[in-house]
Amino acid sequence: MTVKIARNSGFCFGVKRAIKIALDAAKNKKDIVTLGPIIHNHQMVTKLENEGIYKVDKPAEINGRPTIIRSHGVEKEIMDLLEKNGIEIINATCPYVSKTQQVAKELHEKGFQVLIMGDQDHPEVIALRSYVEGDAIVVNNASELLNKKFKKIGVISQTTKHINDLEEIVKVLVSRCEELYVVNTICNATAVRQNSTTNLAKESDLMIVIGGKNSSNTKMLAKICRKFVETYHIETESEIDEKWFKAKKNIGITAGASTPDWVIVEVFNKINKCMGNNIEVDDINDIPGFKEE
Amino acid sequence: MTVKIARNSGFCFGVKRAIKIALDAAKNKKDIVTLGPIIHNHQMVTKLENEGIYKVDKPAEINGRPTIIRSHGVEKEIMDLLEKNGIEIINATCPYVSKTQQVAKELHEKGFQVLIMGDQDHPEVIALRSYVEGDAIVVNNASELLNKKFKKIGVISQTTKHINDLEEIVKVLVSRCEELYVVNTICNATAVRQNSTTNLAKESDLMIVIGGKNSSNTKMLAKICRKFVETYHIETESEIDEKWFKAKKNIGITAGASTPDWVIVEVFNKINKCMGNNIEVDDINDIPGFKEE
Repeated sequence: MTVKIARNSGFCFGVKRAIKIALDAAKNKKDIVTLGPIIHNHQMVTKLENEGIYKVDKPAEINGRPTIIRSHGVEKEIMDLLEKNGIEIINATCPYVSKTQQVAKELHEKGFQVLIMGDQDHPEVIALRSYVEGDAIVVNNASELLNKKFKKIGVISQTTKHINDLEEIVKVLVSRCEELYVVNTICNATAVRQNSTTNLAKESDLMIVIGGKNSSNTKMLAKICRKFVETYHIETESEIDEKWFKAKKNIGITAGASTPDWVIVEVFNKINKCMGNNIEVDDINDIPGFKEE
Repeated sequence: MTVKIARNSGFCFGVKRAIKIALDAAKNKKDIVTLGPIIHNHQMVTKLENEGIYKVDKPAEINGRPTIIRSHGVEKEIMDLLEKNGIEIINATCPYVSKTQQVAKELHEKGFQVLIMGDQDHPEVIALRSYVEGDAIVVNNASELLNKKFKKIGVISQTTKHINDLEEIVKVLVSRCEELYVVNTICNATAVRQNSTTNLAKESDLMIVIGGKNSSNTKMLAKICRKFVETYHIETESEIDEKWFKAKKNIGITAGASTPDWVIVEVFNKINKCMGNNIEVDDINDIPGFKEE
């Protein structure tokens, strides 16, 4: 039996980077905070607490401690406030998100009505909006545009959205404005993860999908896998049933964007144990837990 | 019986304006030339010759005479050449075309790869291209883009093209570039003419469509009319058959973009004559031949 882990499983580049920045900072300092959780994963929050990195929800709770800005970024006003109060800022904003903030600012300064494709309640969008002095239209899809017309419109996207929705919005805008400036700020991590998962599902006879049962990106991975092969969606290794693997030759593992690497490793080890530590592995270097650092 | 002439029939704003500029110039000067025909209509060319306005095909044939630039515009190099040779330029370039040339130039200067949606052999596109030092991609539709990718692409259109094709091209480009700047340079004269014709066809029991038998925009008008009502496509009043009007109550007239107003007026008069000069008219002020100037 072979077990393969889909490339690009789990955390995206921006989240991995933010965690590394946080852990590096904790080597030299004790009692630092993140403004909001670095990722919505309970185990990760606990792991960071063990390193002296605590989550706070508002600037008022910082109490002068060094503050990590998570990958989603934060409102410009909060950044200004922290600076004004002399707080040490450890900026772990994803570089793709920072770029989107910069693009939003520039479009606004050039006189474009900024349109953000995204969820208006998502922290990334809330932060983004602050870079255009709040003067942004936020929609999730073309139908929300109704019949609005524009002179100069500048379109950007929350980094985790789908290109197809952006295409539809842009198509609708062509006849609704005089000038249309689109900067494709979608990060392709989601698309790349789905593609890798699809490829692995096609060559496997069983897929294990790891991630929160309510995580929409994980559910999408499971849905994709089920098109091709028998699939189990689990949160941790404890849910694994040995019977699943009977008469199976090629097992595939993939994981949603909020699944830490070590959870993937635990699943891998459990499968290995079920099989009497007798499986061949492939692409194992994609899992940092297996890497020699 | 009533006869209505569809609003926006015949020449578009830019062509009407160019002819007016030419005729006004001919009031004070004799022996002036147009570089290329003002419009592809034999009768109009003859009419202008009677006023002392002659068509030449190349700068070498100008021989020092005042020169009218027609509504399509002309290559920048030719404009520069005429100026250098001290030729008096009577610029009748359609303002919408001039604006498109300006936009092309600006996009090029800002580092965008300019993409023109249009026919590469059309005079307007040939002229437009010269404003980006020849560095433009010209396509008629999305399929011609193949799999090309771009960093910064600026999209404009030949003024007479269809918005739907522009929408398709822009949609395809969203995922193929980092920055996409679209300036909608489509003039809505064609769409407006088709809409007016559709509306008139719906309330008429006979439609007369005037324009060249090979004119694609006129054929499109006839096709639209036939969806709703009995339709005849003619070039001049001489083709009219009195029998067509038997038992008809509401006659509609429309005309393609290269049909001079007086041809429309002649058709109108012939129908009136067929009916014993006994028809009610409507919207007649849209026809300059009927207007008090």
